[in-house]
Amino acid sequence: MKRACRASDGIMSFMQEVNVALVGLGNVGTGTLRILTENADQIALKLGFRLRARVLCSRNPSAKSLPADGGILVTSDWREAVAHPDVHVVAEMVGGTGVAREIVEAAIAGGKSVVTANKELLAQCGAEIWERSIKAGVNLGIEASVAGGIPILAVLREGIAGDKVVSLFGILNGTCNYILTEIEQHSTPFEAVLAEAQRLGYAEADPSADIDGYDARSKLAILAALAFGEKITPSDIYTEGIRRITPVDFQYAHQMGYTIRLVCSARQSARGLLLSVRPALLAQSTILASVRGSYNAVWVMGKYGQDTFYYGRGAGPLPTGVAVVSDLMRVAREIRSGSPDRVSPFAHERLGEYQPIPVTEHEAAYYLRFRVEDRPGIIARLAAILAARGISVDAVLQIPSENWRDLPFVITVQRTSERAIREAVSEMATQDFLVEAPLALPMETGL
Amino acid sequence: MKRACRASDGIMSFMQEVNVALVGLGNVGTGTLRILTENADQIALKLGFRLRARVLCSRNPSAKSLPADGGILVTSDWREAVAHPDVHVVAEMVGGTGVAREIVEAAIAGGKSVVTANKELLAQCGAEIWERSIKAGVNLGIEASVAGGIPILAVLREGIAGDKVVSLFGILNGTCNYILTEIEQHSTPFEAVLAEAQRLGYAEADPSADIDGYDARSKLAILAALAFGEKITPSDIYTEGIRRITPVDFQYAHQMGYTIRLVCSARQSARGLLLSVRPALLAQSTILASVRGSYNAVWVMGKYGQDTFYYGRGAGPLPTGVAVVSDLMRVAREIRSGSPDRVSPFAHERLGEYQPIPVTEHEAAYYLRFRVEDRPGIIARLAAILAARGISVDAVLQIPSENWRDLPFVITVQRTSERAIREAVSEMATQDFLVEAPLALPMETGL
Repeated sequence: MKRACRASDGIMSFMQEVNVALVGLGNVGTGTLRILTENADQIALKLGFRLRARVLCSRNPSAKSLPADGGILVTSDWREAVAHPDVHVVAEMVGGTGVAREIVEAAIAGGKSVVTANKELLAQCGAEIWERSIKAGVNLGIEASVAGGIPILAVLREGIAGDKVVSLFGILNGTCNYILTEIEQHSTPFEAVLAEAQRLGYAEADPSADIDGYDARSKLAILAALAFGEKITPSDIYTEGIRRITPVDFQYAHQMGYTIRLVCSARQSARGLLLSVRPALLAQSTILASVRGSYNAVWVMGKYGQDTFYYGRGAGPLPTGVAVVSDLMRVAREIRSGSPDRVSPFAHERLGEYQPIPVTEHEAAYYLRFRVEDRPGIIARLAAILAARGISVDAVLQIPSENWRDLPFVITVQRTSERAIREAVSEMATQDFLVEAPLALPMETGL
Repeated sequence: MKRACRASDGIMSFMQEVNVALVGLGNVGTGTLRILTENADQIALKLGFRLRARVLCSRNPSAKSLPADGGILVTSDWREAVAHPDVHVVAEMVGGTGVAREIVEAAIAGGKSVVTANKELLAQCGAEIWERSIKAGVNLGIEASVAGGIPILAVLREGIAGDKVVSLFGILNGTCNYILTEIEQHSTPFEAVLAEAQRLGYAEADPSADIDGYDARSKLAILAALAFGEKITPSDIYTEGIRRITPVDFQYAHQMGYTIRLVCSARQSARGLLLSVRPALLAQSTILASVRGSYNAVWVMGKYGQDTFYYGRGAGPLPTGVAVVSDLMRVAREIRSGSPDRVSPFAHERLGEYQPIPVTEHEAAYYLRFRVEDRPGIIARLAAILAARGISVDAVLQIPSENWRDLPFVITVQRTSERAIREAVSEMATQDFLVEAPLALPMETGL
């Protein structure tokens, strides 16, 4: 309310425009600048005032072709950008948790609102940054940190705020989805697809953050915190990447009416909140199974509104730029109307209802894929290991193939606990006929 | 800014809760009441204060099983509900443009904010109601008026506000989509599916608003106004219902890799904004083609963010109730923070850039279905009529069938204007071999 009063005593009411410092002019920064510039009139019309890039900050500004507008300050010193007296909002698009954190904290300490695309920083210390913003009476916009051009945070924060989320499933890493779709469509091995993706610039030189699931995990931490009103940290989320997925896994999946995706999930169970990022078999009848290439998507089941689904470009300078600009517009509007204390994207306390629980509590049907040296009695041995833990075999599948010296075959099992599956897989891994440890993937049908 | 000052001088700051009058306790009203009651704690936690149903108004309250809470006033007099001194927000869920309009106007005149699910009223005079709200310094929430549980207005108003919408396609009438999906899946004629839908309560006794496209037209008028920042009235929208769609149309569509849906579209063309609600062939590869049953969906193409897609329950007491409650939460938050002047859902002036133009300017490939008395030379005659207008035939299709005395067959034509097609169809309709006027449907592939 203090801010509302300040707004009305005239400080803000003479402000003809809201000024932004864009800090970091990589992909997202350049996309944001382009939209702010090209779409300036429409943005002003929607807002009723101008939203202006006042300061541009880049480590090496001379390397960029920046607008030669006398009114824009170009600097390589982020402290100058953040401290500039004309700047009302700082858009942090540097990324990472080092200098980016300093930038965000300095902006908040200086009474500037912040918009950031930084999932890593938010997943790690979003709740703390939110607390600082609240105390400083400034705004925080984080839409661009998850799922690029899909306004999923606006949806959860406001659009379906009245609902009670029961579960949330997402495809949140475009690189993984692109790689999996390529393996699926062309039966190309993982390593070859990854190399091609790197050549095309779809995957990083060091691809681990994407393909090992860490990037998706950060996004899920942010989404789940908002959806369930809980403090979620990345360490609450079981994470497994896609390195072990082979063309033959898609062959088996298709044969059963499934596909394979890197599925981010957060779901309420009787015992608590189950959180995971892992490759899973998805029934072709689910809407998430139709998400191909580098697209992202989020499927939400609410207690009241039931299922809704959101789909779009998960990355790219312009889709992510739209998220940054839309957040800047919201924050600018709130600065002008003097109401910075809006919906918290991060919970302040755990309610207990959605306490994260270990993934071993998860229950599902599972797909188990084996590569073995051919000899008699293998199926009997594996089946005995499953039976000893009360796990029922659903089917045993083997697609004939000459491309594999070893023999990949699949056992699917009926609904059981992740704990039981892990114990069985551990014991199986000690069997000397195995060429590699079994691959165990949950099978999702209920979306 | 006036309101912000009022808020800060203490009137609002002592308000421990925001009180709602629910006016109209039909399907949506009952759903809203249930969510407000059952989900009260979570709503309070998200808001930081309580959102309370203070007055319930229904024509016949004794017929409803209403909560026996001493703090809730139950009345059959909407004037009492609206004027009640404790009430801050009025949720109008009566529907129609008669008494509903009086309720909305009385609430605004009395300084109360309004949340409404009334698409018909908003499509007809939404811009005027918005003007009144602005002048009175109150809020207006209209999320529930379009696409039930899909928060598409929040998405357009805020989520992707930074983008410039190029085109928007929607499936906005669940009854039509249900009927079309049933015809598609079971080859049942339209009349039989409609009768069954009426028996099950999925279609009204008088089904015209749904099946003739008027309901979808109201929703598209609201969506397009928001997406393009233009004043759109229902009369700007070419509207055609689904009564003429037969099982054989689906057979032909499938044969070509298409399905048929009632497609609401708003798209920018070089000459202006093309608006229509009409059955169309949709390529199976489009994401909208996968929308089945009573679901709704909206596909948006932005200049910067590219394609995003939103999907969910288009109707039903609880999904629509989520939209009403989420709007109530937003409005309540804005009342508390003293900033009622938010994003306009209706443009105040036409910019000209998106001036609606007649549907005859539309260009597409078309599907033409004929029922004729068998005789020689028919194809030659029809082809000559098309050729005379420079329309190129793409294919002539005839599925053998014994169920039809007359012979339905199809001619598809290459991209041409709606004007040329209409002229051709008019001339064809005068040919004495036709059993009925040709059915012409545009073919959509580019979504």
